[in-house]
Amino acid sequence: MDVRIDAERLWQRHVEMARLGGTPKGGVCRLALTDEDIKAHLLLEKWARKRGFSVALDDIGNMFIRRDGTDPDAAPVASGSHTDTQPTGGRFDGIYGVLAAFEALEAIDDAGIRTRRPLEAIVWNNEEGSRFHPGCMGSAVHAGVSTLEEMLAKTDRAGVTMGEAVKGLKAAMPDAGYRPLQSPLAAFVEAHIEQGPLLENTGNTIGIVTGMQGNRRFEVEVVGEEGHSGTTPLAGRKDAFKAAIRMARALEDHFHDPEDVLRFTIGRFDVHPGALTVVPGRVVFSIDFRHPDMEVVKRLGDGVAGVCAAHAGPCEVEVRETSGSPSVEFSGPVPEAIEASVGRRGYAAIQIYSGAGHDSRHMVHLCPSGMVFVPCEKGISHNEAENADPKDLAAGAQVIADVMLDLAERL
Amino acid sequence: MDVRIDAERLWQRHVEMARLGGTPKGGVCRLALTDEDIKAHLLLEKWARKRGFSVALDDIGNMFIRRDGTDPDAAPVASGSHTDTQPTGGRFDGIYGVLAAFEALEAIDDAGIRTRRPLEAIVWNNEEGSRFHPGCMGSAVHAGVSTLEEMLAKTDRAGVTMGEAVKGLKAAMPDAGYRPLQSPLAAFVEAHIEQGPLLENTGNTIGIVTGMQGNRRFEVEVVGEEGHSGTTPLAGRKDAFKAAIRMARALEDHFHDPEDVLRFTIGRFDVHPGALTVVPGRVVFSIDFRHPDMEVVKRLGDGVAGVCAAHAGPCEVEVRETSGSPSVEFSGPVPEAIEASVGRRGYAAIQIYSGAGHDSRHMVHLCPSGMVFVPCEKGISHNEAENADPKDLAAGAQVIADVMLDLAERL
Repeated sequence: MDVRIDAERLWQRHVEMARLGGTPKGGVCRLALTDEDIKAHLLLEKWARKRGFSVALDDIGNMFIRRDGTDPDAAPVASGSHTDTQPTGGRFDGIYGVLAAFEALEAIDDAGIRTRRPLEAIVWNNEEGSRFHPGCMGSAVHAGVSTLEEMLAKTDRAGVTMGEAVKGLKAAMPDAGYRPLQSPLAAFVEAHIEQGPLLENTGNTIGIVTGMQGNRRFEVEVVGEEGHSGTTPLAGRKDAFKAAIRMARALEDHFHDPEDVLRFTIGRFDVHPGALTVVPGRVVFSIDFRHPDMEVVKRLGDGVAGVCAAHAGPCEVEVRETSGSPSVEFSGPVPEAIEASVGRRGYAAIQIYSGAGHDSRHMVHLCPSGMVFVPCEKGISHNEAENADPKDLAAGAQVIADVMLDLAERL
Repeated sequence: MDVRIDAERLWQRHVEMARLGGTPKGGVCRLALTDEDIKAHLLLEKWARKRGFSVALDDIGNMFIRRDGTDPDAAPVASGSHTDTQPTGGRFDGIYGVLAAFEALEAIDDAGIRTRRPLEAIVWNNEEGSRFHPGCMGSAVHAGVSTLEEMLAKTDRAGVTMGEAVKGLKAAMPDAGYRPLQSPLAAFVEAHIEQGPLLENTGNTIGIVTGMQGNRRFEVEVVGEEGHSGTTPLAGRKDAFKAAIRMARALEDHFHDPEDVLRFTIGRFDVHPGALTVVPGRVVFSIDFRHPDMEVVKRLGDGVAGVCAAHAGPCEVEVRETSGSPSVEFSGPVPEAIEASVGRRGYAAIQIYSGAGHDSRHMVHLCPSGMVFVPCEKGISHNEAENADPKDLAAGAQVIADVMLDLAERL
């Protein structure tokens, strides 16, 4: 049994998807469950219906596109990723894994192959976590790692709850079936751009992902006192900005890693009230840090509150841990099937460790899982300049199709 | 001729005004020419009409409430301040000077005194400058310090122009007359809360203002490169946030003044895209600094670009000077008339220097000018906790009434 994916069709679907939330700079802004993101779901539903594939949603808004197998009781072999992006995101992060999975289903359909197990292309909801925190929310709830009630209550900056947003998606897809949380899966494989420079630098096409970093995330709130910038002597100020940048500098030292494996980032830093002539009375900033070694993750994370308190000066500081995930190892049938496909197709491949978090992180709790990375230009991602070579995207989708076909029969 | 202001009426008008944009914390958010600020103008217009005072607007949206004198050709003696506030402002900054001026007109009206010169209570538009930058915009345009066309083209963060906002005010006040820019004034006196702790600490009720600090303001834009927080090695990042906080720290040192006279503030600091898992690609921050000595203002301001460039690291930086004002001295008939009133009424008073900028800064270009400060609690201002004693507010308004009456005859 052989199946060939259609590289041109796969590329055209990327082009079409990039229009939904497309930015003047050539990137994509498609925050989770905004109108643009719902349009992406509807476009996938349209393509699925045309093929006769069924479509279902679960309680947290994950979308399941299913090609039935010959055994109606068998758990499906699934692949997928997410349609949402960062505010200044690119054309490949997330959507590539969805389109590669859908292309695999179509290519197998085109080849007229009947698999024993059903095949599914999955859209995990709110992976980026930049509208509703935390990220990987849909996969976490589906896998039972997070509770549904808690996540539906999360709000975006405008005060809209995740529950209201999911209701909007369901209303837009009245014909979708219902999929219970934690439904059995036989295996899950996710294709994704690397979001780092390693594949490009080493001239490889496929990364066989061996694991994922652990992380902890914090929100730090610094409270001082607002004052008039022209009249308040500096000695008497409680300037939340001055305290917060001292904390930020000290945290850089705290998280300094001479081997440059640890990833420490302050991505949000909101200064209130944010007016030219007002001494800032409040700053809220985020900390994201990641490391493969969970002992390092624990030790350095436990030190955050102390570092912040030591640099608060005349201000008050509160440190809240907002999320965290252990590191993950991928082993067993999925990486083995990837290895087999890569060997058969002759793709240049290496084993690779994931710096980014992905939905597959949570799938390991449900079923054997794994990931396929393809190169992206200069490793740039979470950036409107994100780019990838159509040939590499096609190679990754071919591996996804091979792995799904293999596991649908063999598992 | 004597006139007594009505302390209770003055206080009740503060209470009424504080409802327009009142915040849950007891402050006021009434940004220039928002609905709430326009309501404040309309409330003043209503009070003015009841008294038979006339109302006019000029091209930049300043509002002139006039009680006619016996000589229709005489230039008016005026007093006033502004109705707009900072986003988290208080109940007294600005509005006190407007209500003190209006109270003076009413008290003189109640006393049945006919002055030779007309008396005016003026509302200068957009003093705070936190919706439309720069501040003191209305007084600057009226005095000919800034050009009308340039200021009408300024936009707020939502892209609304000052011109559109002024049009909104004019539409809300169809019965207002027209006042040409740079119309002659005989004198201008402004009452304001001190916004500093000196009067309170020294047990004085009235500050006779001798001058105002000079200032320069800058906008600094730091451009790096967005990247994925989990995959981009720290060595390869162009983190605009990291560069910007190094600049901010270095600027603190650059502006350090062991005598604590210089006022240096970073009040706005916007991090883009501002997402938890994205390395910041752009930061825009403001610099406001002030000093009485214009040589210091010039020298330190000229050094800003160099300090920023020295700490840009792998990022690009652009420093734009957005505004600046020379220091100002008040002398002549207005401070003399204040001195005379204070002596006659027996108020405890001192000469005082203004750390904040006020509309009177620009009035010196049109006519003899001066200011009266009253204490505010703990010197706190540009803060929802801003507070003042009704007795002190009444004393300041009494001085304004005395000065206006005096100058309307004597000048």
